Amino acid sequence: SGLVLVKNPHLDLMEEDVLYHLDLGTKTHNLPAMFGDIKFVCVGGSQNRMRAFAQFMRRELGLAGEDVADICAGSDRYAMYRAGPVLSISHGMGIPSISIMLHELIKLLHHAKCRDVTIIRIGTSGGLGIEAGSVVITDTAVDSSFQPRFEQVVLGDVVVRSTELDKSLAEELLACSRDIPDFPTLIGHTMCTYDFYEGQGRLDGALCSFSSEKKLAYLRRAYDAGVRNIEMESTAFAALCGLCGLKGKSCHFHLL
Amino acid sequence: SGLVLVKNPHLDLMEEDVLYHLDLGTKTHNLPAMFGDIKFVCVGGSQNRMRAFAQFMRRELGLAGEDVADICAGSDRYAMYRAGPVLSISHGMGIPSISIMLHELIKLLHHAKCRDVTIIRIGTSGGLGIEAGSVVITDTAVDSSFQPRFEQVVLGDVVVRSTELDKSLAEELLACSRDIPDFPTLIGHTMCTYDFYEGQGRLDGALCSFSSEKKLAYLRRAYDAGVRNIEMESTAFAALCGLCGLKGKSCHFHLL
Repeated sequence: SGLVLVKNPHLDLMEEDVLYHLDLGTKTHNLPAMFGDIKFVCVGGSQNRMRAFAQFMRRELGLAGEDVADICAGSDRYAMYRAGPVLSISHGMGIPSISIMLHELIKLLHHAKCRDVTIIRIGTSGGLGIEAGSVVITDTAVDSSFQPRFEQVVLGDVVVRSTELDKSLAEELLACSRDIPDFPTLIGHTMCTYDFYEGQGRLDGALCSFSSEKKLAYLRRAYDAGVRNIEMESTAFAALCGLCGLKGKSCHFHLL
Repeated sequence: SGLVLVKNPHLDLMEEDVLYHLDLGTKTHNLPAMFGDIKFVCVGGSQNRMRAFAQFMRRELGLAGEDVADICAGSDRYAMYRAGPVLSISHGMGIPSISIMLHELIKLLHHAKCRDVTIIRIGTSGGLGIEAGSVVITDTAVDSSFQPRFEQVVLGDVVVRSTELDKSLAEELLACSRDIPDFPTLIGHTMCTYDFYEGQGRLDGALCSFSSEKKLAYLRRAYDAGVRNIEMESTAFAALCGLCGLKGKSCHFHLL
């Protein structure tokens, strides 16, 4: 049916659903009227960048005015902007932060009865053995052991989830890139870590217990496993979107 | 000596240290002049709340004017405000987000040659079996298995770190609370999770695979293990501050 799925039997029994961190709710807002026609959701870490992206989309779509209002202005956790059928939302940094936003976004799309929604993460990342300024379109998100899995703790127990993303959308985006000569674009695995400094082999954190050689050996193993860039949200993004029926249409790309 | 320690031999070899997510650096800013007299650092998730806290501190300290400027205005990742010897910084939501901020904050305090710094996290949390509105002062941060540990992935390998916090500061803060009758205050363990919905047993996420009974059984086990509140940053906070010499003076309390 193309609808966004929630997999939670408790939701039907609730009188009201408050999307707390988005400052929206089923009783306070008419979500179908506000969001029912959304077809694309683009998410990224920074609030300013997602506002700039919404302004860019308004220009591209020929919509009057570049001024966009933050739909989540009542909360400073995330910012959300509209440009026609495109929603642009910030998610902060790291898996816990994007997870909170995605739970509430998926419920929003469900309550609004949106159909055939494509969700794309656009973000910065560290490239591995690729030209600076490249765009990496993720085929599979992998963890720090280069495995295509996301370990979710549910009531203290670890549940392992798949992190595969839609291959045909990746190819479609790659085809689009051929019209834009300035940005080298490739498809590859994206590694997702819980930490920016020690987790990604950086030598300039407050703590660093490894040598430059050990760092390079780890990054070389990642490259040999197919990893082309590193960031901090992709496994949770892939797992949550996949489970909620956004998988068929979801992809995930990164700006170096 | 009371100095803040960095444990990274590579830092001494660097010509410049760019604290990227704070929009500060050793060549672009005179960090000792800007921050050398800082004695207290308070951190919390929300940017607006940390600005309000800095304004509150300015009133309490009798400092002229309530207007505070965001020291990290060039970045939208975090916000930082000063009120005399008190620094108030936001850290976003979740362990990855607070970790990035703490790495750069610890290097900032180190470069600024700050001494005898006390760091306190002030944030909201979910209470367990305690009165609504209570303040929980954390003695030990525990993970979702109720263990006092933080598992940090370093180049793909798991390193286990201690999450104990300073007991005497906890007692000192508890003593302060006796002068404030409106807020029931207690010392207890704080549980830190990577997820707000499934990880903390919430029934209203986009995904929920457990019953209300299973949720209550898990929360009861947590209570029996000494947990009095749940949030998403405390284990990383305790581990990082402890390793960098902020342990002796650090504590961590939560508003329900």
